[in-house]
Amino acid sequence: MMVQLMGDERLDYLLAEDLRIIQSPSVFAFSLDAVLLARFTYVPIQKGNIVDLCSGNGVIPLLLSTRSKGKIYGVEIQKRLYHMGVRSIEYNQLSHQIEMIHGDLKNAPKTLGYSKYDVVTCNPPYFITPSNKEINENQHLAIARHEIYCTLEDCIRVSSELLKQGGKASFVHRPGRLLDLITLMRKYRLEPKRIQFVYPKMGKEANTILVEGIKDGRPDLKILPPLFVYDENNEYTPEIRVILYGDK
Amino acid sequence: MMVQLMGDERLDYLLAEDLRIIQSPSVFAFSLDAVLLARFTYVPIQKGNIVDLCSGNGVIPLLLSTRSKGKIYGVEIQKRLYHMGVRSIEYNQLSHQIEMIHGDLKNAPKTLGYSKYDVVTCNPPYFITPSNKEINENQHLAIARHEIYCTLEDCIRVSSELLKQGGKASFVHRPGRLLDLITLMRKYRLEPKRIQFVYPKMGKEANTILVEGIKDGRPDLKILPPLFVYDENNEYTPEIRVILYGDK
Repeated sequence: MMVQLMGDERLDYLLAEDLRIIQSPSVFAFSLDAVLLARFTYVPIQKGNIVDLCSGNGVIPLLLSTRSKGKIYGVEIQKRLYHMGVRSIEYNQLSHQIEMIHGDLKNAPKTLGYSKYDVVTCNPPYFITPSNKEINENQHLAIARHEIYCTLEDCIRVSSELLKQGGKASFVHRPGRLLDLITLMRKYRLEPKRIQFVYPKMGKEANTILVEGIKDGRPDLKILPPLFVYDENNEYTPEIRVILYGDK
Repeated sequence: MMVQLMGDERLDYLLAEDLRIIQSPSVFAFSLDAVLLARFTYVPIQKGNIVDLCSGNGVIPLLLSTRSKGKIYGVEIQKRLYHMGVRSIEYNQLSHQIEMIHGDLKNAPKTLGYSKYDVVTCNPPYFITPSNKEINENQHLAIARHEIYCTLEDCIRVSSELLKQGGKASFVHRPGRLLDLITLMRKYRLEPKRIQFVYPKMGKEANTILVEGIKDGRPDLKILPPLFVYDENNEYTPEIRVILYGDK
């Protein structure tokens, strides 16, 4: 299969999955957080409708497609990233299952429909927009990392609007935003049900949080077993190796 | 030193500390959670004023007295438990530092003073009051475990009323109440700053949470390293042994 690569783009292996993904160091490369979010997310196996917001180069839709036969939409505001996603989906011959949508997520419910989806995932920009000076000079990276085109509240409100009653939204973020995240989830009727904390290694503070909420779910929060990324020798732990490479 | 023991009371060793404590299997015995809360709590070393709400037999004041020269008040509504605390304090010759107060914590700010304290700790009843049928038939245990005389909101509101600006409140609770706990803390100006999750063992869901908030603190939450209680052989982990017995 042929694929057109632009600039410094590479056709990378998508980890444990038998997939390839286009990315570029100067424009966008997926992070471990996206892989952890995809693995953390419950998906309907046989059918259903899934939306991934802030989809970047489509890494989460590609990963979810290995566990669900449902239809998956990826919404991305940056045309350059959207286009990387489209080409990766074509390369993997997944155009029947995954559709990238170029646009502002705030319009997603109008475009894709209200209360129609079983699962929404979102790996949002982590940083509140700082002064112009502090923003990453690389505009592609700045948009992916800073709340320039959407705030956390936008992501959560839109997720709720897209979901059916009983549908699940999952988010990844930094611990410093945990309280905002769960306060906003409750505000938009997404009751937090599962939280997992990711620690870089034993004895260190968590640096990543994974949260799943159910639309109009009843309060009953579980704190999943912690996930450690590195062992005492600074190598990936067995649980992370399984997630990344499928080692058993 | 003589001590008067009533009924099935025992004079137990208080763990790692060179202290003794009166407790009774049928009335009240402190839990690991109280020990974890005492250890989790930052205390002023040389001076300061500390209040422990829902103090039971005074286990937390006794433990904190080994790390702080500040004055410590324990507020307990059950006269029987209050009296156990008073006798333990006398036995340990700590009456100059620790004072047990028999009364409803809702009156504590009036009795003890508003905005005067550096630290407030509280190991509250964990269970929302169920129907009469389901409540523990042992009234002493029921009051300690169920929200009969005080709700979580009472505990948090009173903690905030007692604290100075910049003072610290720490709580221990179950993960199912995490969202209520932090929502109420923010409602009463106690900004959550440190959370630690306690897992019974590796690979299991957390069963205990420790949360510290600062009155009028600025948002900046840290998730501390996780704490595991048992190892794979169901023995206490080294970190728990240090907390309980002072093993190095």
